[in-house]
Amino acid sequence: VSREQKFWGWGEPGAGPALPDHAAGELRERLGVSGEVVLSPVALAEVRLRAPVLAAGLRAALEGAVGTEHVRDDREVRVLRAAGKSYLDLLAQRAGECEDAPDVVVAPASHEQAAAVLRACAEHGAAVIPFGGGTSVVGGVAPLRGRFETAVCLDLGRLDAVLDMDERSRLARVGAGLRLPELDHALASHGLRLGHVPQSYEWATVGGCAATRSAGQSSTGFGSFEDLVAAVRCATPVGELATLGAPASAAGPDLRALVLGSEGVLGVITELVLRVRPVAPERRYEAWMLRSFDAGCDALRALAQAEVAPDVARLSDEDETRTTFAFAGEAGIARRVSGAALRALRYRPGCLLIAGWEGDAADIARRRAPAVRVLRSADALPLGRGPGEAWGGARFAGPHLRDALLDRGVLVETLETAATWSGLGALHASVRDALEAALRATPAIVGCHASHLYPDGASLYFTVLARQDPDDPAGQWNAAKRAAGDAIAAAGATITHHHAVGRDHARWLEPEIGALGVELLRGAKLVCDPTGIMNPGKLLPDG
Amino acid sequence: VSREQKFWGWGEPGAGPALPDHAAGELRERLGVSGEVVLSPVALAEVRLRAPVLAAGLRAALEGAVGTEHVRDDREVRVLRAAGKSYLDLLAQRAGECEDAPDVVVAPASHEQAAAVLRACAEHGAAVIPFGGGTSVVGGVAPLRGRFETAVCLDLGRLDAVLDMDERSRLARVGAGLRLPELDHALASHGLRLGHVPQSYEWATVGGCAATRSAGQSSTGFGSFEDLVAAVRCATPVGELATLGAPASAAGPDLRALVLGSEGVLGVITELVLRVRPVAPERRYEAWMLRSFDAGCDALRALAQAEVAPDVARLSDEDETRTTFAFAGEAGIARRVSGAALRALRYRPGCLLIAGWEGDAADIARRRAPAVRVLRSADALPLGRGPGEAWGGARFAGPHLRDALLDRGVLVETLETAATWSGLGALHASVRDALEAALRATPAIVGCHASHLYPDGASLYFTVLARQDPDDPAGQWNAAKRAAGDAIAAAGATITHHHAVGRDHARWLEPEIGALGVELLRGAKLVCDPTGIMNPGKLLPDG
Repeated sequence: VSREQKFWGWGEPGAGPALPDHAAGELRERLGVSGEVVLSPVALAEVRLRAPVLAAGLRAALEGAVGTEHVRDDREVRVLRAAGKSYLDLLAQRAGECEDAPDVVVAPASHEQAAAVLRACAEHGAAVIPFGGGTSVVGGVAPLRGRFETAVCLDLGRLDAVLDMDERSRLARVGAGLRLPELDHALASHGLRLGHVPQSYEWATVGGCAATRSAGQSSTGFGSFEDLVAAVRCATPVGELATLGAPASAAGPDLRALVLGSEGVLGVITELVLRVRPVAPERRYEAWMLRSFDAGCDALRALAQAEVAPDVARLSDEDETRTTFAFAGEAGIARRVSGAALRALRYRPGCLLIAGWEGDAADIARRRAPAVRVLRSADALPLGRGPGEAWGGARFAGPHLRDALLDRGVLVETLETAATWSGLGALHASVRDALEAALRATPAIVGCHASHLYPDGASLYFTVLARQDPDDPAGQWNAAKRAAGDAIAAAGATITHHHAVGRDHARWLEPEIGALGVELLRGAKLVCDPTGIMNPGKLLPDG
Repeated sequence: VSREQKFWGWGEPGAGPALPDHAAGELRERLGVSGEVVLSPVALAEVRLRAPVLAAGLRAALEGAVGTEHVRDDREVRVLRAAGKSYLDLLAQRAGECEDAPDVVVAPASHEQAAAVLRACAEHGAAVIPFGGGTSVVGGVAPLRGRFETAVCLDLGRLDAVLDMDERSRLARVGAGLRLPELDHALASHGLRLGHVPQSYEWATVGGCAATRSAGQSSTGFGSFEDLVAAVRCATPVGELATLGAPASAAGPDLRALVLGSEGVLGVITELVLRVRPVAPERRYEAWMLRSFDAGCDALRALAQAEVAPDVARLSDEDETRTTFAFAGEAGIARRVSGAALRALRYRPGCLLIAGWEGDAADIARRRAPAVRVLRSADALPLGRGPGEAWGGARFAGPHLRDALLDRGVLVETLETAATWSGLGALHASVRDALEAALRATPAIVGCHASHLYPDGASLYFTVLARQDPDDPAGQWNAAKRAAGDAIAAAGATITHHHAVGRDHARWLEPEIGALGVELLRGAKLVCDPTGIMNPGKLLPDG
């Protein structure tokens, strides 16, 4: 049996770090919450569900496609497939609001079975919601039905095989439902790994990473997920779409790019050929302090443009730096950095940079040396490996800690964007200001880091903490999100660097890609999915 | 006035290198031709042209769009815009076969003017053939009319401005008709360059490079043209398509990738935002000998997979190496490499590798050292910088020499593909065998080099020399091309790594991208170009 997350939170029950003891004091002081657990998720039995709507003909066709035991409509599976992991999702799941859960969860074991499921749903008229790791934070797996009565969750968890290894070309053909840790485990026996490590690493599937254009914390060094995809195979309601596994081609537009980021609205990715790389025997994560966010961004730009950026590069702004030190507590970064020392050096408020290299020792030494020269010439203060390794050790902690914060009545959510180096400073200010203005009714902390470096720009990743409005927690966040999204669009930046569009960003797609861009996507959908069963309400704005 | 090429060959009259004196002997010995000039192109006045078909209403609309003086239908402009630069094109142009020349050549000076031209052609029903540098070798600018009577050549030569420079983000916004040398000249005043150097560098435009997914001789180091495009702006018959200039985005499929490689069938690229880089103060090109093509490919693979490949990497197979030495003569590589020395070292027949680095001296030294270690461990013999610089100095010579070979009754053409490292050896053999079998009626030389390295594979570039069949030179080449293309498709490789599809590769598109892939492209065309005026007969197979 495949492992499953809690329906109302991140990870398996009991897994992951707990909120450190001293955090309660920080929450009290900065957000005005007590720091005590004040809210608890409902039990599975209390979750509100509608009876599934599943016509006998469709059920028979689905059972014919995948086998009776893989067509499930019990309470547990429906609740587990009812939502992703955004703050809004967790609010609803914790409250037991699962009325719209999918009517049935169907798990094919092959491309052919997936194709048969799509044909059955097209014939009988049912919405299909592909479900990989279920880690979407933009409503990407919300069981929206469009004009259909029945929502079929297409669970890709059984498409989890390594189908072929071409070690000579460093290519692995794998099932789309394979999770990242399981893939890396399988690759390790060949001395290989994927090198794609998003914060959702523990649960994300390769198909989901492809469908949403995942970036990964090491994207500065190893590229984003789309750079790792040599070829894709999709099932669509009208047939198969497969791209060639050539390393490059000029045979017309790159159709791989039309599949990557298509978020299940054209069809479902069933297999991928992935570019893999040798395991990294060493990893060196270290921290530096920069005098300001502007100075730090200049240093990041110098690193990227000199093509000597570390594999991981992540610069917190002053607010995030302050919060990081405060929440890290004794076990974390703060123990290893003397506040007095930083003050004395006038790096306070400074900006924390995490820089990480992965590879063999000689390779790291060769690549790190020119980066260190850039950082020193930017007047950066080395903090050593301690705080860097602390960050590396806690790189997956965020979503676990979020559950503990929700227990304590805290609004906690993130959003991200990207812009050119020229536009980054103004974007940072305008999104921060928009969030702070929208949340002004309650104490709030808005922090940001720049990461995912490119020669022409970088991403900005905002984390928001605030006292939850107990009367309308969803409305509180929706207002903040709306303000931030509008600020991003007004700045000419992208509405998402790596969280994808899903349901929650659909309103900002047309401002970003234009009316004709939206029509092109609608045209592609009409070709692949003429009856509109695939993931309705996602990616494309309504209407 | 913009510079123009000879209508029947490459470059301006008299430009470029001549065939070296001793080449006549080689041609006689290996191809059985005399080495004397036996064929000459017709004069412009002798070229056969039909009278232009241009309805008064369309002419008025075009003149309204761009101004009377930029709507031309004189003999010279029509002949100059009648063909690209493939062997088949040159055969026809040299013979004065220009019956199908475009009826009119229209040169807009802005995106808005280009859009107005497309609207006029859509309204009046005329085919539009975008024309940048005119360097297509796949029939990309052939004036095919589809179902229309009139062919309008949309000449982008006046869209040649640098519109905006963002030095901080290293981004340049430029007109699509800007030629690569003019762009690099303009960038040099900012200490910058594009770093994209295809063999067609002297004439290629940035819009053409984007529309055809050009690779460039330095693609191993600097990426192919699509990696250099941050954003595109297109005019289509139904309106504007513009992508955002963010360094990365996950907002749905990357529509930039739908424009890159679209070869004018969706609309015409009018502006691009390009990623530029600092000028390279130093360049170091050097040569090595490998014991065999297989051993050389293993070395290339090791370089690419260790991420220490040179910026330029080009390994000739045994046949191409032999031909290179023979034709280079005293002025070239041979003078600097003693055949006896190579024989003594048992590198004969060996394989010549050109490896090139560009940057500042310290950067070159830092990047070259690990590459040299890989080459030495592959038992490669260093030949020093002489032969490398000889190659660098002659990197644009090929198309010039081709004219001289055509004068001498020689068939000369190239074709290219790409495959994974695992598939490269078999692909090399099967394409070579197919070409040799198809050309068995005449003496022929088939050479190949591997270049454009990726961690998962490389391209193969074949050059064919043969005695021309005087009775049916086009049929002779068509048979060889057909055999090679079928061999490529049968091997599961791409029909083109960087020459694009145009007219000549259209039959192999569906084998490569599948029926649904073709339908997706047709769907995109229907959205952007509902009346089908844009570049009919290109990219998409007929029917």
